Amino acid sequence: MSAAALPSWNDGVARAAILDFVARVTQEGGVDFVPPAQRIATFDNDGTLWCEQPQQVQFYFARQRLEALVEKDPGLKTRQPFQAYLEHDMAAIKDLGKKGLFEVAVAVHAGMTEDAFANYARGWLAKTKHPKLGRLFKELVYRPQLELLEYLRTNGFKTFIVSGGGIDLIRAFAEEVYGIPPEQVIGSSVRLHFEMQDGRGVLMKEAELNSFDDREVKPANIGLHIGRRPIFAFGNSDGDLAMLRYVRTGEGPRLALLLHHDDAAREFAYDREFRFSPLAEALDKADEYGITLVSMQRDWKRVFDD
Amino acid sequence: MSAAALPSWNDGVARAAILDFVARVTQEGGVDFVPPAQRIATFDNDGTLWCEQPQQVQFYFARQRLEALVEKDPGLKTRQPFQAYLEHDMAAIKDLGKKGLFEVAVAVHAGMTEDAFANYARGWLAKTKHPKLGRLFKELVYRPQLELLEYLRTNGFKTFIVSGGGIDLIRAFAEEVYGIPPEQVIGSSVRLHFEMQDGRGVLMKEAELNSFDDREVKPANIGLHIGRRPIFAFGNSDGDLAMLRYVRTGEGPRLALLLHHDDAAREFAYDREFRFSPLAEALDKADEYGITLVSMQRDWKRVFDD
Repeated sequence: MSAAALPSWNDGVARAAILDFVARVTQEGGVDFVPPAQRIATFDNDGTLWCEQPQQVQFYFARQRLEALVEKDPGLKTRQPFQAYLEHDMAAIKDLGKKGLFEVAVAVHAGMTEDAFANYARGWLAKTKHPKLGRLFKELVYRPQLELLEYLRTNGFKTFIVSGGGIDLIRAFAEEVYGIPPEQVIGSSVRLHFEMQDGRGVLMKEAELNSFDDREVKPANIGLHIGRRPIFAFGNSDGDLAMLRYVRTGEGPRLALLLHHDDAAREFAYDREFRFSPLAEALDKADEYGITLVSMQRDWKRVFDD
Repeated sequence: MSAAALPSWNDGVARAAILDFVARVTQEGGVDFVPPAQRIATFDNDGTLWCEQPQQVQFYFARQRLEALVEKDPGLKTRQPFQAYLEHDMAAIKDLGKKGLFEVAVAVHAGMTEDAFANYARGWLAKTKHPKLGRLFKELVYRPQLELLEYLRTNGFKTFIVSGGGIDLIRAFAEEVYGIPPEQVIGSSVRLHFEMQDGRGVLMKEAELNSFDDREVKPANIGLHIGRRPIFAFGNSDGDLAMLRYVRTGEGPRLALLLHHDDAAREFAYDREFRFSPLAEALDKADEYGITLVSMQRDWKRVFDD
């Protein structure tokens, strides 16, 4: 089985670590056996499961919606943080940070019902292409990771996403693309409130942040949503480090992986300087923290589906 | 199959409604067919799945912990809301309400790690008996509901708890007793923060409320945790009404059920006057809202396991 598993992964340290880990935790009677109910695996999304360059998809999603809103309310053009996004002022956007990006997304989607947002997001994802790679965003998911998700599930794991991106945007495609149902998606979120509208109960999105699911908040949200420590985690930036260390420092067998984007030819090469989610501390301390580095260039036979 | 299903339920309107609903949503090619991924069922816990009289279990749990803390810090004896609980001052406790009860639980468990809390709760549930019925709290679950949970899962449903009780206390027994894993438990919660302690990542419980999962907050938390509208819900008080209406007013086949505790002989009889979770509006408007009433006395052949 191992020979056929993960066909888009090259033989090497990372693939071997995955195969060895899964073999150990599924070996009944073995010293490292983990019952299926405890086989929880958590994945970051942006840059771990799909492409986040040159901008995170959330950026394009919010900006397109923002442009539509400006036609109705031209005053937004001179109001921050909207102005920075409308004018593509990258210095200002960098200053606003990943949280600022999410706050724009919050503002432009406030007042929609959850159902309306989901329809809007699905429609957007069904037609919107990456500006440089020319393919639908939802096709720019990493083939080796799709295989890994499936491989883990085949071995009794329950797979979750734990992302700094908006929880609803991810839920709009995660089931179709990753095989991960909405209830296994954790992400940044706005407050919701329930109300009756014309006899129908609806959830309204408010303009207020509920949770910005980054860094130390990721393990805290794992506690809230999952309620037990995962045994496997995969990330690609310092924003994932707390989650990786939370998972890695539990008792028993553990595997924490970190994707290094070092493949300018097939995707992008970036780490310390990426504006929203730099990879620096996690790269420098991976050994010390027991985190296994995955090199896109070296460890992946291919990146996207052809 | 139907003849053997739900053996602890008497033939009647409620049992027939459940069997009919499940038959319709699982009938492939039928007009009411619902794909398995969308078969989400949510249950309240206190008074719906287990006994909440004469006090909710949360009450006994927090009070025992409070008494232990008083030995270390006698000053708590004269500080509210602790004093009311220590002196069994029922008038003051009623004024504090269900949220006050939860806030006492918050205060007495702050500063514990999630792991330590889970161990403490499991130990407490393994030994603590109901003061009147003389059995372990975790044995005072309703046999007809255990059958219903299992029946739904057998028919492809995913079963969730959505409770005003503390999420961690429920997670400490829900898998063993209800077959519901921690990630399918939603409840009231405190804020958690992640930190490293002696090289180990832990989640610490703070003294601050994150969510009091009652009334309109229940559907909002369903939106956050599950991300799609359930098609089936079961409650027993006005605290569940928003959830029941949210579920009932979605498109397609829907079933919302409400347990009426009208059985003083086998359990307890109460509705409008129950101090923490009265059943009044939901009882008066069940017909108007399309909610099916379940009478404990009439619809259940037995209540607890012998």
